[in-house]
Amino acid sequence: MTVTENQVSKRGTMWSTVPASTTARRSTNPIRMVLEKMDAMRATLSATTERKDSPPSPAPLKLSLGDPTVFGNLDTHPAVTEAVSRQLHSCRANGYGPGHGFEVARAAIAQKYSRPEAPLTAEDVILTSSCSGALDLVFTCMAEPGQNILLPNPCFSLYNTQCHAKGIQVREYRLLPQCNWEADLDHMASLIDKNTAAILINNPSNPCGSVFTKDHLLAILAICEQYHVPLIADEIYADIVFGNYPTTDPDVATPVQFHPVATLTTTVPVLSVGGLAKQWLVPGWRLGWITIHDRNQLFAEVRRGLHALTMLILGPNTMVQKALPDIFANVPASHLENLVQTLHRHAQICQKYLECVPGLKVIMPQGAMYMMVSADPTQFHEIEDDVDFASRLNVEEAVELLPGQCFNYRNYLRITLTPPPEVLTEACQRIARFCARYYRA
Amino acid sequence: MTVTENQVSKRGTMWSTVPASTTARRSTNPIRMVLEKMDAMRATLSATTERKDSPPSPAPLKLSLGDPTVFGNLDTHPAVTEAVSRQLHSCRANGYGPGHGFEVARAAIAQKYSRPEAPLTAEDVILTSSCSGALDLVFTCMAEPGQNILLPNPCFSLYNTQCHAKGIQVREYRLLPQCNWEADLDHMASLIDKNTAAILINNPSNPCGSVFTKDHLLAILAICEQYHVPLIADEIYADIVFGNYPTTDPDVATPVQFHPVATLTTTVPVLSVGGLAKQWLVPGWRLGWITIHDRNQLFAEVRRGLHALTMLILGPNTMVQKALPDIFANVPASHLENLVQTLHRHAQICQKYLECVPGLKVIMPQGAMYMMVSADPTQFHEIEDDVDFASRLNVEEAVELLPGQCFNYRNYLRITLTPPPEVLTEACQRIARFCARYYRA
Repeated sequence: MTVTENQVSKRGTMWSTVPASTTARRSTNPIRMVLEKMDAMRATLSATTERKDSPPSPAPLKLSLGDPTVFGNLDTHPAVTEAVSRQLHSCRANGYGPGHGFEVARAAIAQKYSRPEAPLTAEDVILTSSCSGALDLVFTCMAEPGQNILLPNPCFSLYNTQCHAKGIQVREYRLLPQCNWEADLDHMASLIDKNTAAILINNPSNPCGSVFTKDHLLAILAICEQYHVPLIADEIYADIVFGNYPTTDPDVATPVQFHPVATLTTTVPVLSVGGLAKQWLVPGWRLGWITIHDRNQLFAEVRRGLHALTMLILGPNTMVQKALPDIFANVPASHLENLVQTLHRHAQICQKYLECVPGLKVIMPQGAMYMMVSADPTQFHEIEDDVDFASRLNVEEAVELLPGQCFNYRNYLRITLTPPPEVLTEACQRIARFCARYYRA
Repeated sequence: MTVTENQVSKRGTMWSTVPASTTARRSTNPIRMVLEKMDAMRATLSATTERKDSPPSPAPLKLSLGDPTVFGNLDTHPAVTEAVSRQLHSCRANGYGPGHGFEVARAAIAQKYSRPEAPLTAEDVILTSSCSGALDLVFTCMAEPGQNILLPNPCFSLYNTQCHAKGIQVREYRLLPQCNWEADLDHMASLIDKNTAAILINNPSNPCGSVFTKDHLLAILAICEQYHVPLIADEIYADIVFGNYPTTDPDVATPVQFHPVATLTTTVPVLSVGGLAKQWLVPGWRLGWITIHDRNQLFAEVRRGLHALTMLILGPNTMVQKALPDIFANVPASHLENLVQTLHRHAQICQKYLECVPGLKVIMPQGAMYMMVSADPTQFHEIEDDVDFASRLNVEEAVELLPGQCFNYRNYLRITLTPPPEVLTEACQRIARFCARYYRA
């Protein structure tokens, strides 16, 4: 074999650490970073808070995870299991599917989500390995490194992680807690420049639990229209809405309604992402989708690009894909109604216990699976910020919450509403006890 | 809302087509491109070959797809189905898993693939959404845009597609058909430069069906060692080997053996990728893995990078993950033995029929699920190349094969060995008839 001295010397004369790529190094998870900071804080706190009268440690209560399945109180509907079981035992759903998914599965999604104002065919649907996979494809296809995408603040941290990994600049528009987490439209508009590839909205919202009104969605679409910016709609919590919109007049109650944003425009091109994870309570199955709403053929290249990108990995699990028509056909409407009622009841429990706790301010959610609670550190002794609050709460009361900094938003706490009522009640009581200890009278 | 004239003008005064990113536009599939060329050729040929004596079209025979499940003759083992069924019906495998996969699943893979010469623990395993997903992670983590990776020629086209999408340069080292598809080591070494991030080997090989000897693997490792280049081993066809190595002395038969390349080195860091797709015959389930072989901590950054990248999508289907320990424990050894015997028998059928066909040259495979046959166009009337051969064969005899150009290799044809014997027999007879018509006597 021919070996030139030149080649060898160029490669060095011994092994050295193999570097990871920029993309890999940029793939940082803000939640993980905050949790590591909390771990460090907890370690210090645990070492210094050995009180003589310390009671036995209570059972830990996890209100931190966005996984509705962990407590076993929210199982998927038996018809979902049955639909997959039929595919599994047929042995005829084990082969490769097309990159963008089987036609029967795409047609089922198109049928379920088509609206007269935003019609869909199977050709407008792309199946992906989870809603995270859908977002990854959408970001990859829509933006070059150096371009920017507008994200809500606070927001689900994965958007940031994925964009950052790809070298896409993130610009966060403010959500206004005092306006039921509506977007600050002036701020949103001010962030747009010639390098803006898209605006992303997440409705219903993680972590806020808010649901945009029709008027607010129209106002966001007006900005897209004015600046000709496409819209990415993360609608993974579609149809998970409850209660009424907040109002100053208790006699005028307006029930919350979910509007798929694509139904409210004939001009703005929209990519909506969704999946089985939340409504059907099977996040581990990794079945997500993109629906392409493009009435004026502005997304012809994007559509081709998305299809091309699906060839790199080749779609989600085929058993679940082929079960989709049965899942949509056989799960009764009562499944969603029960889920929504449960989440509403859980939100009301947290509201009841926490709204009277001095130092906290509850913002009642209308959808998704979360509630945001403000915890103003100036009202508490010793507590520096939300991370400090959550760390101490964890050490002293064994309650796990995510501090707002996990969503790039200080001095709020996110409570997951999926645990059973008795867990939420106990957790709220511990939070109240904790706050009472630290509250500045 | 504040709208500045400046902003609006920067964004244009009307909607225009939304561009797709460079990555999306670069995600081209060579197989699809060749198949489109074939479609065009077939259309022309069909229009011009209306013969008076044309017989009724025979039933189409697909020997083109790398999916072992399409004919229904190669089902997964019932223990595989049962293992997943238990997880499905438990309703306890529906939640999120860690990005790199559940510990039980990683431990099962580590146990199955650990060797004294290349030990593995659960920490050395990363679960991915299919082996394609594993390759995608590995390429993303190992190379910056502008760096290069060495690939075999011919090779599975996905490597090219994925690298090209990421802006990674591809350099193809020759495989030598006359040497049982061993790599041209001089050529391989000559392609290495300071920007070479890795060498990839695919063993057993798609499309060649070849299996590298221990000596040949050692020779490749020596190049890695000499130039300090890490190795990526696509071992998705691990253990699917049969027959003997070719020899000039029929009295000395050496049975083919699969050597995981990591077992043959203590110095070269190796990332091996695999999955359930082939041996367990469930490609649609999308369960793949990476095993990290790094005896000298050269991959510390790469390992962190791979873990970070898994956070972007969050792993494969959790039911299948949690079923892995049962799958490995309960599928009897006879399953693999039967599969291997079947493939060997199928290869022998194709060899028997095709080795005596003038103009063709069979290279008997020793593994994977494919056979490469050379079709020298100079020996046939009118036939220009492999694409022309495959197109005409398809029009005239309704046999579908992939021309070598799908693997960037002219004047060979890839035959998939998974169809039932009667399909292979009939297809070979039609190929023989086709060749007889075109052969230059």
